[in-house]
Amino acid sequence: MTRVGVRQQSETCIVRAHGGGGELMNKLISEHIISAFGNTTLNQLTDGAVLPAETSRVVITTDSYVVDPLQFPGGDIGRLAVCGTVNDLAVMGARPLGLSLGLIVEEGFELARLDQILSSVAKAAHEADVRIVTGDTKVIEHSGGSGIFINTSGVGSLDDRINIGLDRVEVGDAILVNGTIGDHGMAVMSVRSGLEFDTDIRSDAAPLNGLIHELIDAGVDIHFMRDATRGGLAAVLVDICEQSGLGVEVDESELPRDPIVRAAAEVLGFDLLTVANEGKVVAVVPQDQADMCLGLMTRHTRGRDGAIIGRIVACDLPLVELVTESGGRRVVQRPYGEELPRIC
Amino acid sequence: MTRVGVRQQSETCIVRAHGGGGELMNKLISEHIISAFGNTTLNQLTDGAVLPAETSRVVITTDSYVVDPLQFPGGDIGRLAVCGTVNDLAVMGARPLGLSLGLIVEEGFELARLDQILSSVAKAAHEADVRIVTGDTKVIEHSGGSGIFINTSGVGSLDDRINIGLDRVEVGDAILVNGTIGDHGMAVMSVRSGLEFDTDIRSDAAPLNGLIHELIDAGVDIHFMRDATRGGLAAVLVDICEQSGLGVEVDESELPRDPIVRAAAEVLGFDLLTVANEGKVVAVVPQDQADMCLGLMTRHTRGRDGAIIGRIVACDLPLVELVTESGGRRVVQRPYGEELPRIC
Repeated sequence: MTRVGVRQQSETCIVRAHGGGGELMNKLISEHIISAFGNTTLNQLTDGAVLPAETSRVVITTDSYVVDPLQFPGGDIGRLAVCGTVNDLAVMGARPLGLSLGLIVEEGFELARLDQILSSVAKAAHEADVRIVTGDTKVIEHSGGSGIFINTSGVGSLDDRINIGLDRVEVGDAILVNGTIGDHGMAVMSVRSGLEFDTDIRSDAAPLNGLIHELIDAGVDIHFMRDATRGGLAAVLVDICEQSGLGVEVDESELPRDPIVRAAAEVLGFDLLTVANEGKVVAVVPQDQADMCLGLMTRHTRGRDGAIIGRIVACDLPLVELVTESGGRRVVQRPYGEELPRIC
Repeated sequence: MTRVGVRQQSETCIVRAHGGGGELMNKLISEHIISAFGNTTLNQLTDGAVLPAETSRVVITTDSYVVDPLQFPGGDIGRLAVCGTVNDLAVMGARPLGLSLGLIVEEGFELARLDQILSSVAKAAHEADVRIVTGDTKVIEHSGGSGIFINTSGVGSLDDRINIGLDRVEVGDAILVNGTIGDHGMAVMSVRSGLEFDTDIRSDAAPLNGLIHELIDAGVDIHFMRDATRGGLAAVLVDICEQSGLGVEVDESELPRDPIVRAAAEVLGFDLLTVANEGKVVAVVPQDQADMCLGLMTRHTRGRDGAIIGRIVACDLPLVELVTESGGRRVVQRPYGEELPRIC
């Protein structure tokens, strides 16, 4: 393509030079990125962002997002990227200081679509009350893939008083989740399968830092927390067992599940326990604080359908057992991992 | 493919389930990632890493690496990913607290190749005296691309006494660079073009935090620093001009350039000023500290070929002017950006 051709194309699409570190990359940054979520720190465009932090401990976390399709009911890759990283900080008990945004975009990707995604990043960041403070953009050849990958990394400050960890999990502790499970995974899979469900099932992608810090600030002594993303609730519960050496008992009848999501999972052959969420936290709290914690949760926008779903139990083998609705018991295993590719 | 087929293939290649958040991802993490550069923080496999930080300012930085080919004389994508992010922290004056590593790998990518890259990550991290403290792995479909993208983000602590910024650049300041320019870009391009040069030209990819903190600790009052990566020396110098409103004068005769790299650039039609480096820092220091700074630089492994290449000048228009070897003058512009795709 001639230079003139590239210049024209570059008005509507991502071209190679958008990732070249030159004039056109600067234009992309100022006209699309800064205009979407610029702030005094990001706008300096230095090699990194300086953040004031009155803390003795910082938390760093990272996630890359490769979700396919890029857009689905309830969100898109931009919303996912912000919420996922904010939530990873939040479940560590940290308050976000800032996020980084790394874009890998295919040549030919429409700038209008990029703008939609960036506006979604901005909206989710506003919702989570966090800023994108630094970033990076790379361009790769068109390969017929979904067109964009996003990495978000986050830094948070961790209050000295916070002590959350699997070593604090005790027999008798209650296990809570803040709402219906499997919504994100089933929203993406319904779109991908072209199912009729797709308009009724919405991803739960949401920032949980507001809810989590409300619990912490109210004095809930959370022993352990994790967001149930890839691998679903099952992966988190198996991790709790394996790393604490204790057992987990889950009451199927207490599991918050949306009936349409449940129907979709049945049609498509998924076990909702293993399906990804993007706005669900599993919290292990002392038994005598369980009701107080549930009360706080269900009064919060992000926890209305919250429930106490089970408990930590003493056992010979550290297993997750599901007490089924019919009163039977089955062992819940970590999923193998191939069922839900590119779900986030 | 049957489940048995996947299990067999998963012993030698990346399969979908390696990114699924389940059993096979855990196996990948423990047998390949932890074994390459595990440490007490990373091994906890929590949603993020907690880092002690006796500081009031933290620095966050991010970079994604899409270099093609993955391996080139002097380095590979793993070495690049560690050095690039360490250097971004270092030029901000920050000391690294920890790095995150986000992998996006194509299905079918050989585990043996992944291990090579991870071992290169480990080696570079050791060289830079920094730890990989958290990470993420995603798997995408095979698309005939180079097979792996890496994001590294970094967090550093910034001493209260450090004050580096374009607002500190003054007329009369000296501009130094720590060695030959354009080596990284020409190493990658020589391999890509199948040129004979490829064995003689080595990427300069290297961590610069050792050198930079030696300068700072010795009392050099560095006004501004930046590593000259994509866009090369030209992009850094143009940034200095545009953002300080001052002029830059560069002496072509003082530019450290390797003769073979120079010849390769001529054959392939590149201007070395715009070619990427991965181990070069441009430092702006007070005139009266220039010689002292150069002395420290040239005594350090990473600065043996360092030179004072120019100065900040008063001017009507903030331009970068190159005083050529023949005594002429030409304006140096920011490159457009399309000449060197996927160079890092």
